[in-house]
Parts: sequence; C-alpha cells; structure tokens
Amino acid sequence: MVPAPSALLAARLEAVRRALADRDLHALLVTHRPNVYYLTNFDSSAAAALVSRDGVAVFADARYTTALDELLAAELGPPCGEAVAVGGSGSYVEVIAAWLLDRAGGSRVGFEAAQVSVRRHGWLTERLAAGPVSGGGAAPMLHPCDDLVERLRSVKDAHEIALLREAGRRLSEVAAALLPVWRGSAGRTELDLAAEVDHRVRLAGFERPAFDTIVASGPNSALPHAHPTERRVGAGELLLLDFGGVYKGYCVDLTRTVVVGDPEERARALYRAVADAQDAALAAVRGGVGADAVDAAARGVLAALGWGEAFSHGTGHGLGLEIHEEPRVAQKRPAGPPPAVLIPGMVITIEPGAYVPGLGGVRLEDDVLVTADGAERLTDVPREAGLMTR
Amino acid sequence: MVPAPSALLAARLEAVRRALADRDLHALLVTHRPNVYYLTNFDSSAAAALVSRDGVAVFADARYTTALDELLAAELGPPCGEAVAVGGSGSYVEVIAAWLLDRAGGSRVGFEAAQVSVRRHGWLTERLAAGPVSGGGAAPMLHPCDDLVERLRSVKDAHEIALLREAGRRLSEVAAALLPVWRGSAGRTELDLAAEVDHRVRLAGFERPAFDTIVASGPNSALPHAHPTERRVGAGELLLLDFGGVYKGYCVDLTRTVVVGDPEERARALYRAVADAQDAALAAVRGGVGADAVDAAARGVLAALGWGEAFSHGTGHGLGLEIHEEPRVAQKRPAGPPPAVLIPGMVITIEPGAYVPGLGGVRLEDDVLVTADGAERLTDVPREAGLMTR
Repeated sequence: MVPAPSALLAARLEAVRRALADRDLHALLVTHRPNVYYLTNFDSSAAAALVSRDGVAVFADARYTTALDELLAAELGPPCGEAVAVGGSGSYVEVIAAWLLDRAGGSRVGFEAAQVSVRRHGWLTERLAAGPVSGGGAAPMLHPCDDLVERLRSVKDAHEIALLREAGRRLSEVAAALLPVWRGSAGRTELDLAAEVDHRVRLAGFERPAFDTIVASGPNSALPHAHPTERRVGAGELLLLDFGGVYKGYCVDLTRTVVVGDPEERARALYRAVADAQDAALAAVRGGVGADAVDAAARGVLAALGWGEAFSHGTGHGLGLEIHEEPRVAQKRPAGPPPAVLIPGMVITIEPGAYVPGLGGVRLEDDVLVTADGAERLTDVPREAGLMTR
Repeated sequence: MVPAPSALLAARLEAVRRALADRDLHALLVTHRPNVYYLTNFDSSAAAALVSRDGVAVFADARYTTALDELLAAELGPPCGEAVAVGGSGSYVEVIAAWLLDRAGGSRVGFEAAQVSVRRHGWLTERLAAGPVSGGGAAPMLHPCDDLVERLRSVKDAHEIALLREAGRRLSEVAAALLPVWRGSAGRTELDLAAEVDHRVRLAGFERPAFDTIVASGPNSALPHAHPTERRVGAGELLLLDFGGVYKGYCVDLTRTVVVGDPEERARALYRAVADAQDAALAAVRGGVGADAVDAAARGVLAALGWGEAFSHGTGHGLGLEIHEEPRVAQKRPAGPPPAVLIPGMVITIEPGAYVPGLGGVRLEDDVLVTADGAERLTDVPREAGLMTR
C-alpha cells in the first residue's frame, strides 16, 4: 500500500462531511474495510473509523495501535485523526459505543447498512440504548446510510489514477508475454495455465490475484463463470483467460481469448464480433454519458451480427480498491435505479462477451479511465494476437 | 469440490432440523456460502438455501440453474431438494420472500444474523410484511439464529476428514520440499519467497492459497501479523512462513520458522521453547478436554521459560470450509462465552508463537484431528530442520 497524500485525505473527508450534511447526519461510522482505508490510509482486517464534523477516530485492536499511532504522527493519516485502542476486555462494539456515548450524545450517526451484520448492529444498538450519555441528553441514534463512501470512491483522484495506470501497465505486460504461450498451450490443463498466470502476476509486482483466475477452454469457454479444471486444452479450441491483480491496494482486471493453433472460421467470426463490440463500447465512453449507453453500444454490435442472445452479462463495472465497484455498466434493470452517468475519473472495465454452446465463448476485457472527452486505456494488449494464424 | 455422499448430506440436514426444533423454529434461511455448500453440495457466490422440516430449497440465479438441476437430478444434492431459479426481474430477496409467503405462512424462520446485512434483512422483512400470505394467516417471521450450522460444521464427518487428511499431506510435502530453500534464502525478498510458496501450493493441487501468505524475516518476524515486503532476508535471521491451501473446498494451514544459515544461541533457545510449547499443546488434545486447557498447556511452557509475555495470541482455531472456524483454542475471555470442549472429529491448528523485539519471532503450526484419546496429525514436517546447522 502507498499512503495517499494528506491533502487528498482531507479532500475525501470533506466530501464525506458534505454528504453527511445533505443527509442531516452528524457522523458516519465506517466499517467496510476499503472505505476505512480510503479515508484514513489505515488498512487492517478489523479497523473502523468514525468521521464526525471535526475529526476522525480510528478504532483498531492492540495488534495495530503502534502502526496506527505512527501513521497519525507521520501526518499520513487523516487530519485531526485520533487513534482509539480496542483491546483487553473490550470489543469493537463496546469501545465504539462508549466513544459515541461520551462524545456524540443526541447525534444522528450514519452506518453502512449493506456492510454491517444484523448481529453487530443489534449489539451496538443495545449498548447505545443502555447509556449513560455523557452530560445527559438523548443517546446517539444509528441511521442506515448506504453507498456514501462507495459513491465518492467511484471517481478516482490523482493518487489512485497513478496507481491504476501503473497496475494496468504491469498487467498488460503479463498478458502480452503470455499470449504466445496460450496459443501454443494444446495439451496443458486449465489449472496448470491458471497457476502460471497467477505466478506471473505475482512476479510482476502484484500483491495477489484480484480474484480466482478463470481459464476456460473449448466447451468450458461457453460458460461465462467457468472455473479452471483438469481439462486439457485441445488444438483449434477457443481459450478464455480472465485474471487480475492487486497493486498497492488497487485492482485491475483483464480478459483475453485466443484460438489455440489455427482458428476455424466460426470461431474467427465470433472473435471479430466481440472485438467490434468492445471497440464500439470503448468509443462510447466519455464523461456525461450514461453507463447504459456504453452497454448499448456493445450490445447493438453483437445483436446486429446475430450474437445478441449470446451476450448474457453486462458490459463492465467500476474497479479500484475493490474488484467490483460502482458504476455498473449494463442495461437498465426494469425496476432498478436509474443507470449511472459516467464522470471523468471513473475507472471501468469494458468486457463484452459472446457464449455459444457447441462453439465456445469469447470475452475481451480492458480497463479504462473515463475522461472529459473519451477514455484513456489502462490496459493495452494486442488483441489481434489472439487470432493470428501461426 | 468433491460432493459429499447423499447419506452424509441427509445426516447434516437431520442435525439442522433437530437444532431448529430445539429453538422452536420451523425453518432456517441459510445464506453464508460455506453453510449452503455444506448442506447442499452446491457452491456459488450467491446461492441461498431454505431448510424446512420436509425439504430443502436452493435459490440460485439463472447462471447456475442448469448446474443446480443436474446436481439434484444426480442425487448428489440434498434429499427432497428443490431448485428455485432467481432471475429475470426478481432479486434473491423477492424470490425468497415469495417462496416463504407461498409455503411458510405463520412459521418462525431462523436467519443467520451474523451473516446477513442490515440492508438485506430490512428488504426481506418489508417484503414479508407486505404479503399476501397464501391461504391467509400470519406472515412468516424472521428470527436471528446464529452459529447453528457453524457448530455442526466444527465436527467433521468422514468425507471431510478424508479431504483434510489429503490436504494436510499435500501441504506438508510443499513445506518439506521448501525447508532447505528457506534456510538458504539469504538475499531473497520476502515477497519473492511468498510468490514461490503460493506457486508450489498451486502446483501441489490446491485451488488457491487459503489466505495471504505471511513471510516475515528478521525484525518483521516479531510482528505476529506481518505481510511480506521487499525486505531481503539476512544471514542468521529468523524467517517465519505461514501459509495454507484450499483443497477441494477444505482449508489447511501451516507455519514453520527457520534460521537462515547458522542460528545464534538466543534464536535457538526461542525456537526450542516454542517447539516445546507446541508439543505440550499437542499432548493435551483429546476429546472431552476444554480448548482453553490446550491453550494453557502451551502458555505454561512458554511462561516457565520466561517467554510468557511474548506469546500474544491464542494457540489455535478450527478449520475446514473456512480457514477460521469454531472452536477457538485460546484463553477464556473475561466476559466471553465458556470455552469450547473438544469433540472427536474437530480439526484444529496448534500454533503457539513467541515474538521478541530485537530478536525476532518463532511460530510453529500444525493441523490435527481431535480423536477420542488424542490427536491425529494432519500436517507433519520435520521441525528440527528449521534449526539444523548447515
């Protein structure tokens, strides 16, 4: 992890405070790990942060207090940050409740309802109701407050864009180096190819794969969510590889499909259709455009070529500290919320695919940064190499 | 994944039904992924299961319905199992609510409160309250019901024990092959060693590492939760490696510490103390013993040798479909629940450690199966090799 500069943390916190004011809340209890990291530069599996109007308190257990104190002292932590130790006999819930009863009597405290379990919420509510409140007055009240930090995170700042650019460059190098290996992989198993991808990703400087690598050959490539198996790749088959890496906390994601050996004509046609769909979606990306319009661009190409039914998922998703973030780049759902509008600074995947039982599947995926007038590619790997006749 | 035989699934479901009856519940909504898999043999990132007195309904979205139908038809799924497709415009919450309103009017339905978010619980409660209930009557009511399946899962059945034995054997082979590499690793980085471990784990037939591999050298080994860094291993240093693998769904976990090159006397003494503590804990394991007594055995040895303060975590944890499961093998917490009692069939780690700033840390971890009169080692790697003078 590379800590974000203090000025950026301050800006992120200020944005949270504006959003809190809009919702008539006094504070936000942040428990979702990537959100805590985003607002404090502090990463731990069990930290929580409380963003109030005048400061940030970070709660961490005894294993982490030294690390946290150092972070705050070095001014890499949030401005007006405060470290609160959880340890000894106190649980997170007890320590957070005590802090709120002591400092936030009568206030409305937002919590991340999509990220807090019913059990933990029950414990916290009980403790707050039990009081006592310092100085008397009403107990702090919890209010569900979803996606507040997630929405801020969907538009990346300069620090994040720099890391994502570097991550995309490294992942592209891995893919470019492996393309000829994949094209000559007849006889190797999907699991073996997946292990090789993961190892190369690690050697390229990533902390870990961003998700379980997909390697799907022949008939398996027609399943959009295949897992690698002991199946051996056959000559002439379509071979689909979808993999990602986490680089200093940030996720990138890439899919290439190749034909092993010499492609038959139908596989070639399917590949070209998906490539054209990806081009159309990429051309549609720019600030101010609806994410559903980007999806429609890809979908229209495949439908016009007769593969409309074969494109069974959305065109893409945001990514950053998590592999799936806002915005969703897909068709509007009948009863769902309005589609997101792309904003410069968003980072999204563009990954149309077509899956045809009996023939196989093709998916091509790249990551792009949305700009005011288009898209900047973060991953860039020759696509044609997947089809080239050897 | 290797599906459990139908007879075992039936026994697991019967145990759930007995536990439901004890709690005066009519059904259990299972949403925690490993619990769904344990009861149905069906693995997907978004399935849910509803165990009622006379059957099991598995909810999965359109991507998985073929797989689910095949599972049930092949009798590898739960007896009296039913597949319910989630798809089109319906969400999981809507489809589950509709099923309950149609089939479970008036009943008390348990849900996994530690695993369901406040948001999802709110949606489901609202939908159930909106009705209508088939045939009239009261709406089904949700009741928090924690750890029911987790508690059953803590005692492994024959199918699980066979997989865990094989997983332990494979992980031990990886460790044994790498021990001499680690002892000669001066000059290599922690990250490089971690990538090598993960690659070997994959080549040994594991689906993936069970968690982020820890490689901690010299001063870093004194931090119990260190992450691998660019630091290069120095001659004479302690080097701690903690890693695991997931084999056909089941997790195993192993830690070895070695001295790189020739150990100095204090490092040797620390190593021996931890090895003695591990032996004492292993000797204490058997059915009917309190898990806290196993912890006390390790803790007593380290305290007697003057390293009591340096052992800053618990002695172990259960493992299986998840890397951390019940039981907790640790000291009783002042206000916590009573310590677990070991039951034959439980699989636990025994992993005492001692962390000394300025010297480094040693942790030794193995996995064992609790038996009626002792422990069966699932991992077995020569410990002495870590200390041997070259």
